[in-house]
Amino acid sequence: MSQRIAILGPGLLGTSIALASRRVAGQSIAIWARRAEIVEELRARHLADVVSDELRAVVAGADIVVLCVPIGAMPTLAREIAQHLRPDALVTDVGSVKAPVVAQLSSILRGSARFVGSHPMAGSEKNGHAAASADLFDGRVCILTPDTTTAADALTDATGFWEMVGCQVLTLSPAQHDDIVALVSHLPHLLAATLVNTVAEKNPAAFDFHGPGFSDITRVAGGPPAMWTEILCTNREAVRNSAEAMIEKLREIITLLDREAPMNEFLTKARALRDRLRPTKNDV
Amino acid sequence: MSQRIAILGPGLLGTSIALASRRVAGQSIAIWARRAEIVEELRARHLADVVSDELRAVVAGADIVVLCVPIGAMPTLAREIAQHLRPDALVTDVGSVKAPVVAQLSSILRGSARFVGSHPMAGSEKNGHAAASADLFDGRVCILTPDTTTAADALTDATGFWEMVGCQVLTLSPAQHDDIVALVSHLPHLLAATLVNTVAEKNPAAFDFHGPGFSDITRVAGGPPAMWTEILCTNREAVRNSAEAMIEKLREIITLLDREAPMNEFLTKARALRDRLRPTKNDV
Repeated sequence: MSQRIAILGPGLLGTSIALASRRVAGQSIAIWARRAEIVEELRARHLADVVSDELRAVVAGADIVVLCVPIGAMPTLAREIAQHLRPDALVTDVGSVKAPVVAQLSSILRGSARFVGSHPMAGSEKNGHAAASADLFDGRVCILTPDTTTAADALTDATGFWEMVGCQVLTLSPAQHDDIVALVSHLPHLLAATLVNTVAEKNPAAFDFHGPGFSDITRVAGGPPAMWTEILCTNREAVRNSAEAMIEKLREIITLLDREAPMNEFLTKARALRDRLRPTKNDV
Repeated sequence: MSQRIAILGPGLLGTSIALASRRVAGQSIAIWARRAEIVEELRARHLADVVSDELRAVVAGADIVVLCVPIGAMPTLAREIAQHLRPDALVTDVGSVKAPVVAQLSSILRGSARFVGSHPMAGSEKNGHAAASADLFDGRVCILTPDTTTAADALTDATGFWEMVGCQVLTLSPAQHDDIVALVSHLPHLLAATLVNTVAEKNPAAFDFHGPGFSDITRVAGGPPAMWTEILCTNREAVRNSAEAMIEKLREIITLLDREAPMNEFLTKARALRDRLRPTKNDV
C-alpha cells in the first residue's frame, strides 16, 4: 500500500521509522526538523523524499503523521499542524508516557485528524539520526493506547503502520501503559542511573574493575538525560510506586544474605521468569 | 612458552580457559571433571590433551593449576591435589569472592605449591562447557589478589597466564577485591534478580511489554542460582553495605521525581560516568 508518511522529529526513532519505511516499496517519506543544519544533514543522507523545516510542506497531504519529538513538545506541534491535516490523516506519536500525552493530543486534534497514541519499545542509549537503523523496530513490541474516543479504523491503520516498520503490536489503555512501562522501562532506567551514582559515591575506583554484566545493567543510563527527566517526572506516580516496591524487595533480599535456601529460591524464581522473556535482538 | 595447564572444573570459565590457551602454540592442556558423562562430552570435543575424572592424572607435572569449581568446593579440591603438585607449580582460581577463599587456599597449599588468587571479570548468564568460547577473556579485566604470603614470582607467573588467555591484569588485596566486586558485580546481580521479582509481584503481564533495555538490565539474572547464592552469601557484609547504599540513593532519586532540574543533574552525572566505562565486547 502506497502511503505518504510525515515524520516530525529527526532523532533516533524518527529517522529509524524513515529507514524502516523505505524497505517497503511505494512509501513516500517526508521529515520535519526544526534546525536548518539537521535538515541539511538529512538531505545529504537521501533517506526521504522531502526534508524541510517547514511543517506545512511536510504534513500537507500526509496519510500518516508521526510525532517523534520529546513529549513536552508534542502539544505545541500538534496545534501547529492541525490546520494543515486531511481529516482522514492518522496522527500518532512515540512518547514513552501515554495518559497525559494521549489526553492532550486527542483533544487538540479532535475534528482535524484521527489520533492514536503509540509507544514502540525500541531505542538505544545512543541518540540522533546518525544512530538510526532500518531494523530498529524488527520484532519489538509497539504498544498502541486507544482511549474511548479512538475510532476502530484509526486503530487498524495504526496497527498496519507499526507492523509495516517491523513491530509486533499490542494494545493497552493509556493508564495501563503508564503502570506497565514504569515497571519495565522507567524503573530500570532509574535503577541503572542510581547504580552508577551509588558506585561513584561508595568507591569510584570500582569502575575500573567492571565486567560485561555491569556494562549490560547500566547501558540504559547512557540515554539522553533531558528526555529521561521529562519521562520520569511526567510518569512520577507510577515510577514512585514501582521504585518503592523495588526498595521493599531489596530489603527482603538483604535479609536473605544470611539464609542460603530462601536466597537460592529467590534467585531461581528470578531466573525462571527472566528465561521466559521474549528474546530481543541483543539476546540472540 | 610451553606450559602444562591443568584446569579443574569444565564449566563456562574452565572450558573457555582451555579454548583460549589453545590459541597459543605449545600449551599442553588437561581438564578434570567430576562426572564421567562430562568427561566423555569433553573428549568428544577434542579441546584438551587429557580429560579425566582422576585428579592425579590431570595435575601431575602441571606448571599451572586453575581451580574452576564453585568457591565452596575449592578447599576440598585443594587438599586433594596438594600431594600431587610440584612445589613450583602455580595454583590459581576463578572465585568471585576472594578474602575467605584466598585465606583458605593459601593455608592449604602452603609448602605444596605457589598460590595466587584471581578473578577474571568475564562470564555470561549461560553456563556449562557448551557456552564456552576462546575469546571470552579478550580485553576483560582479571583481578589478582596477592596477600602477604604471595611470592613475587608467583604473581608474575599468574599475570603472564591471564594475559596469555586474553585478560588485562589488575591487582587488589583480597578485601579490596570483595568490596569493589560487591559494587560492580554482586549488587548488580542482586538488583537484576530483585527487579524481575518486583515486576512479577506488581504486574506479571508487564513482562510481555518489555523492550531491549529490560533485557539488558536483567541479563545477569539468568545466571546459575546456586553459584550466585554461594557468592552473595559468602560476601554478605560487602553486599549488604552496597545494597544499603543503593536503597539510600533510590530514596534520594524518588524525591527528585518532583524536581526536574536536580533529576536532570542526577541523570547527567550517571551518563557521564557510564560513558567513561572501558568498553566491553557487547558495547561495540
